[in-house]
Amino acid sequence: MSIKGLTNEQAAMVQHIKLLKQQAGSHSPSLFTIKEQLPSLKMDIDACFLSNPYATDLFLNYFKKELLGDDLHIRDMLEFYPSQNKVIAASLASFLKVPQEMLFVGNGAIEIIQAVIHNFTKEKIIVNIPTFSSYYEFIKPGVSIVFNKLKKEEDYKLNVEDLLQLVNYEKPDTVVLINPNNPNGGYITKAEIAELLEGLKNIKTVLLDESFIHFAYENDELEPLSYVDMVMKYPNVITIKSMSKDFGIAGIRAGYAIMHPSRIKHLLENGFLWNSNGLAEYFFKLYVREQFQKEYEIVRKRYIRDSQEYFKNLAAIEGMKRYPTQANFALIELETGILADDFAFGLLVKSGVYTRTCSDKIGLDGEFIRLASRSHDENEAIVKAIKEAL
Amino acid sequence: MSIKGLTNEQAAMVQHIKLLKQQAGSHSPSLFTIKEQLPSLKMDIDACFLSNPYATDLFLNYFKKELLGDDLHIRDMLEFYPSQNKVIAASLASFLKVPQEMLFVGNGAIEIIQAVIHNFTKEKIIVNIPTFSSYYEFIKPGVSIVFNKLKKEEDYKLNVEDLLQLVNYEKPDTVVLINPNNPNGGYITKAEIAELLEGLKNIKTVLLDESFIHFAYENDELEPLSYVDMVMKYPNVITIKSMSKDFGIAGIRAGYAIMHPSRIKHLLENGFLWNSNGLAEYFFKLYVREQFQKEYEIVRKRYIRDSQEYFKNLAAIEGMKRYPTQANFALIELETGILADDFAFGLLVKSGVYTRTCSDKIGLDGEFIRLASRSHDENEAIVKAIKEAL
Repeated sequence: MSIKGLTNEQAAMVQHIKLLKQQAGSHSPSLFTIKEQLPSLKMDIDACFLSNPYATDLFLNYFKKELLGDDLHIRDMLEFYPSQNKVIAASLASFLKVPQEMLFVGNGAIEIIQAVIHNFTKEKIIVNIPTFSSYYEFIKPGVSIVFNKLKKEEDYKLNVEDLLQLVNYEKPDTVVLINPNNPNGGYITKAEIAELLEGLKNIKTVLLDESFIHFAYENDELEPLSYVDMVMKYPNVITIKSMSKDFGIAGIRAGYAIMHPSRIKHLLENGFLWNSNGLAEYFFKLYVREQFQKEYEIVRKRYIRDSQEYFKNLAAIEGMKRYPTQANFALIELETGILADDFAFGLLVKSGVYTRTCSDKIGLDGEFIRLASRSHDENEAIVKAIKEAL
Repeated sequence: MSIKGLTNEQAAMVQHIKLLKQQAGSHSPSLFTIKEQLPSLKMDIDACFLSNPYATDLFLNYFKKELLGDDLHIRDMLEFYPSQNKVIAASLASFLKVPQEMLFVGNGAIEIIQAVIHNFTKEKIIVNIPTFSSYYEFIKPGVSIVFNKLKKEEDYKLNVEDLLQLVNYEKPDTVVLINPNNPNGGYITKAEIAELLEGLKNIKTVLLDESFIHFAYENDELEPLSYVDMVMKYPNVITIKSMSKDFGIAGIRAGYAIMHPSRIKHLLENGFLWNSNGLAEYFFKLYVREQFQKEYEIVRKRYIRDSQEYFKNLAAIEGMKRYPTQANFALIELETGILADDFAFGLLVKSGVYTRTCSDKIGLDGEFIRLASRSHDENEAIVKAIKEAL
């Protein structure tokens, strides 16, 4: 079964993309890759891509003004070595209200995820599924993985009691919490996080991935959420934060983590000395500036409001179910009998809308795609394309 | 003892920089760090910095033309995820005449050095000293290090027989060869490399670091040297190549390595999935273009000729010895009794010329600094400043 109205040529392109998808493993093939391999493909909207486009605009404004002026200050960022890890970490410390010896800077959050799992997970890891696949793909041989399968009948929301019970029984050395979770956007409230961290305080390592936390909220003012105070009470917790999604700068590769100083010392003894590039260092300097943060708050809230409107519109489409989300994406279950890959790649070929098939995601029962929130206009176009395809 | 004519204020600044140097460990404090901490310091020339400035100019020309035009194509490099490691490696394969499954792309060569030493050095490593410190700093606990001390009376040139004899006696699992060597610039000829690789063919891992090879030559035409054919014969050799020095783009973080496919498979199973940023991917695409390579060859040769003239001028200065070099830097021994730190930081404060003290380098007997070759005019200014200081 394919989506409505595909030509033979389009159907062949769907097959080609399926192949690229296989080669890319458990991540989507990149935009560059697809464009290179299928130059005739018209990709108008990348709804795989989890990123606030308004934040990219904001960053670009600063970038143009400060680096592309007459003196072309960007030359310094390209030509010279960036600062070492510890120096960049120090520049973030007071803004994040964290001692500098607890801050670790990464070449994207993915580098940190790999580093902490390799270095600190020795025996058994519990991962809630569905999840971001790196959390179990990066484990070393000999480490066992226990999946805590989130329940479909509970909309894949994390059930705190279930998880604590499983932990008690399995006695892992590592537990992973992603909040909001990827790929479903399920949110763990501040009260639940408090309960979880207390219940997990005897576990050697708790990974709290807050890469999507800027899109979540607990009140109508959409005030930013922060768990720093809470996390500081538990020396076993490692908080990981990507900057790619909320700040719209995935190409720069920037992330950080908060963890016990002894762990950072261990990591830095083993490398990660010069793992930031010149533009990442520029971004981190911008990130801590008051004026930038003020402007960022405006685009963050604007994006959340646009996203929530989009999620409401998706929920109203017949033939699919939109799951509850507090991230910048929504998990969609296809209920018409079409396979996720056929739907996702068919939609790309027919309407130029690239969506994330979840056919490779473990822990989902059914056919699922994940839809990113993009700009207001793009979101409307995505809704329209999906309505036409179903 | 300090350099001639320092004021009290300047002497205090020298002490401050000594402290920064301590904090930076076995690498120089970065330009950014020093400028931030000592805003009144006038640093005119960074002669620590091992980079072809003409190549930076060349890259900047392309960068401006192709990324900063009206459509601001650079937005794509900042906003979107770069391609995965394997995809970028594939784009380099035919240019380097190496099968794609033997190519590994790094977030700078330093990431590769760390990765291969962590993953493939299990027992004992032999490193020729003086050397680039990461080669022994990154080893895991339990691995023993054997230093092959290069002889001062042989101008710190690698003696092939001595090394092979030591290897035969020590039976290491890893041998490191840096060609030309850092910090002295000593060159191992193609004939010597052939002899070494044959003599080391039973060693599990031979690391051949060619980060400075673009500055070396064996004939007056300065033809580019390449060992790819030779290396392909020995599956135990890992060739590591930084792009920072020859292409003048240290801030972008780009490097690659050639190694046996089974090793790359092992590394990619453990991470390094998305370790390039958007600009590194752009650089690698530029790097394989014929027109870029043609223009690069001109600036490479121009830089070598300027460097060789500079090295000749340095050799003529009294009170110091310039060691033989085929890199883009020269090792200088101070013969007036001044300590290397006092000379280097004194020269910075007095003349705005930042040179690399080698006080932290093991394997050197005496007081040494390392001088990078910069542009023609800067090289002349460095020579002048040193003459005044000695």
